Formats: sequence, structure tokens, C-alpha cells
Amino acid sequence: MIEKSIRVPVIVAAGENFKQVTDEIIREVPVTLFLNDEEFATLICSPGNLKELAVGFLCSENILNRQSNLLSITINEEDGLIWAEIAGNPPAAEQFLKRYITTCCGRGRASFYFVNDARGISPVSSDIRITTGQALSLMAELESLTTLFRKTGGAHGAALCSTKEVILFYEDIGRHNVVDKIFGRCFLDKTNLEDKIIVFSGRISSEILIKTAKMGIPIIISRAAPTDLAISLGNELGITIIGFARQNRLNIYTHGHRVITGNT
Amino acid sequence: MIEKSIRVPVIVAAGENFKQVTDEIIREVPVTLFLNDEEFATLICSPGNLKELAVGFLCSENILNRQSNLLSITINEEDGLIWAEIAGNPPAAEQFLKRYITTCCGRGRASFYFVNDARGISPVSSDIRITTGQALSLMAELESLTTLFRKTGGAHGAALCSTKEVILFYEDIGRHNVVDKIFGRCFLDKTNLEDKIIVFSGRISSEILIKTAKMGIPIIISRAAPTDLAISLGNELGITIIGFARQNRLNIYTHGHRVITGNT
Repeated sequence: MIEKSIRVPVIVAAGENFKQVTDEIIREVPVTLFLNDEEFATLICSPGNLKELAVGFLCSENILNRQSNLLSITINEEDGLIWAEIAGNPPAAEQFLKRYITTCCGRGRASFYFVNDARGISPVSSDIRITTGQALSLMAELESLTTLFRKTGGAHGAALCSTKEVILFYEDIGRHNVVDKIFGRCFLDKTNLEDKIIVFSGRISSEILIKTAKMGIPIIISRAAPTDLAISLGNELGITIIGFARQNRLNIYTHGHRVITGNT
Repeated sequence: MIEKSIRVPVIVAAGENFKQVTDEIIREVPVTLFLNDEEFATLICSPGNLKELAVGFLCSENILNRQSNLLSITINEEDGLIWAEIAGNPPAAEQFLKRYITTCCGRGRASFYFVNDARGISPVSSDIRITTGQALSLMAELESLTTLFRKTGGAHGAALCSTKEVILFYEDIGRHNVVDKIFGRCFLDKTNLEDKIIVFSGRISSEILIKTAKMGIPIIISRAAPTDLAISLGNELGITIIGFARQNRLNIYTHGHRVITGNT
């Protein structure tokens, strides 16, 4: 078991007093991913669930899209090393990374950037309905699960849920990593996702929305804000975006037909 | 003037009531950077201050380190395009990006990763002292400046300060971008930084710490948490890390000799 936090000495200053105590701090580790024996990327993350992280990252980046293409994956949690073997010819790191950061066609228009990354994503189609009571209750459950955040103040949490309960839950220092860990685990388990929900502690940016769409998940609920680009993409890709879900209220930004009033 | 937020329709659900209102949402735009006429990177950011962002990004990535090397920089804010011309041979995007994401030597050890990125950074040496009162007062001033955050809930803020006042301030959707915008502006203005302080809304991760060290700024104050790796780097690179600065208390994690009790 690799710890996700560590105790360090800290001086607490309150008013005129300086007091030496120890405090729980979130750990941050670099992990190197080798793809078909080539060094491919270094991810900065919380330790643990590296298999889920690597698979989810490869899925998010369109490198892995069918389970039969994943030939093997070997993890050395201790040293932060991952070796993935996939069928076919993966992109060389250089080509992949050029695409990764320079997805824009050079016109600098949002639509080009996202058409490029969102290419091949079908709009999510799902008959799922969620009540406002269920949405708020899932958010309350997420908050009760985020022990790393409560200990360190430094983690994001994400849960995969049905309308009734949390199915999977991860915490990670990285906003993207928690969603990738869910993506990876669902890919490995062939989880049916068209009736599932992501409940998330972080802001819903375009990248988080694109990951949700690639998973085919119809609803994302956050306690934080969405961006304008995430809202445009949510509209286009058939995803219900719920933001600022806190205590007894929430905001619905897109595809509100899936949200109904009620408690159960 | 390009707006950093936009009003969108939203359904607010509170209890049994659904109400259609409009809400202020943070904008998120892709910006393409051309380096010596080659497409180099796409950054996702808040609109505005693209010159600062591009220069700060190039400094952070060790591509630009002397002012005389920056031959020209041209911005098209409207379309999100930046053309930078630098002396000498910049790395090709492919090589740069390989280094950028795969800095790890393959051993997966934190020290290798950071030795690589932190290479060439001299530990910060500075006689600056700050009182706990000054630190808390600068944080309160940062909070009063973060209007985009208060409107949208989606922005990070960072300020460059003396011990007495805020000198520069930026808000951006990206935690890294706000610090890069400060880096860029200081590089363009040749600001003396050894007696300055960064006051920041976000978590202090290793990457934020490395940017601070590259700027040669001796103190960083955040209202949020640091990571263990940021603390290690802060110890090595001579940077005072203050976290959880809120209301009337703060935590000092490294180089506490620069923090003294008092109000002025």
C-alpha cells in the first residue's frame, strides 16, 4: 500500500504565536508510461491505481479504443513505472505529443480545436433521468468519501454512479487524473456507461467534458463551475451538465430534460 | 476588450422549483503559439494578456532566458494567435514536447524528473522578511481583486507583491497560466524579483514551485495546500512556502526564517 499523503513538519502562525506541529500533505509523484517499449509520457499524479490511470489516459488520448487492443499492462507502483503493450502501431511519442498540445489547426478558433479532439465522438444518447434529490445526494456521498481532500486540502475526487449509488470512486491530485482513473477501470471492466453519472469535485472544463463524452456518460455533476466551451460541447455531444451542486440547490446548464424534480 | 466571462441561460433548481435565469460563466479559449513561424503549442486559457502568457510560457519552458533573445512578439487577441520570433534555434515542437512531457529519465524517481526540469535553477537568495500580518493582508487584497472568480467561480488569481502591496495581478482559468502571465510581464519589464512575493489562490504543486524558482522569487503564499514535492523543491531551492493563508492564520512549510511575527 503506497500512501497518498505524508506527514511533514509545519509552523502554524496564528496571531502572535508560532507553533511547530506536523501536518498531513498530499503526495505528488511522476509516473513514466512506456508504450510498446518506448518511453511515451510522464504523468504527475497521486500514487495508486496506476493501471486505471494509464489505461484511462490512453483511452482519453484515442490511443486505445478496443479492449482487444490492450495486450498487456504491467505496473511497478513502487518506482512509478508502467509498461503497456498494445496491438498495432501506436503513435511515436513525438507525433502523439505534437497532436496533443498542438491540436489547433492554426486558425485559433475554438471550433477547430475541439472539432479536432472531439472528432469521432458520437453524441451521447440515453434515456436516463435523475431527480434533483438524487443528484444532491450523490454529491453529498462524494463529499463524504473524499478523505484525502479532508486530510490534505489538495485532492480532487470523482465518482462513477448510478442514479442511486456510488459505484467507483477515486481521489487524485490531478483533476484530469481522477476522471482518467474512472475511464481506465470502466474500460477494463467493460462497464456499461450509458446509464451512469460522473460526480466530480472540480471545474468542468472542455477537457473534462470531452473525457465524459468519450466514455459515453450522459450526465456530469460538479460542485464547481463549468466553462463556456464545456457548455457548448455539452450541448453538441448530448451531455447534461449540472454545476454548483451544493446542499439543496444546483444549476443545470445543458440537456435539462434529464433532470426532474423530486427526492427519490 | 475581450470579455473573460459570458452570460448563458441556466436552470436553477432549488427544492421543488426550477427557475430559468442567466448566469455568468468563465470563458475558455485555445490560443496557438507560433515560434519562428512554426506552429509550436496550443494553450487553453482565459482571453487577454496573451503577450504575457506567451512570454511567460517560453520562459517557464527554458526556451527564452534573455531579453535580447526575444526579437518580436505579435498578438492577435481576437483570433487567439501569437507569433514569437526568438534569436538562435528554438527546439522543434516535437523535440520540445518530448522533453516537456517525458522529462523523466525512465527510472520513475521524483528526483530524476525534477533534477531534469529544475536543472540550472540556482537556489533563491534574498534577505526579504515578511510579517504574518503583511502576508495575511496581501492574501486579503488578492481576494478582493479576484472579481472573475467571484462572478464565475472558475478562475485562479495570482499577484506579484512587495511586502506592502500588490504590483501585478492576473486571473485565468488555468492555475499555471496566471503564474506564467506574471513571469512574462516581469521578463518584459526586467522587474527585479529577489524582494518580491507571489500571492496565489491555487495549490502549490511542483510545477508552480519550479516557475517561482525560475523567476527567482523567494516567497510564495497560497490560500490552498502545497504538495510534498513542492515542499522538497522549496527546501532545495531556497523558497519560503506559506500555505493555507486564511483570515488570521497561515502555515509555513519551508525557509521559515523569512517570516516574522507582527502586523506591519
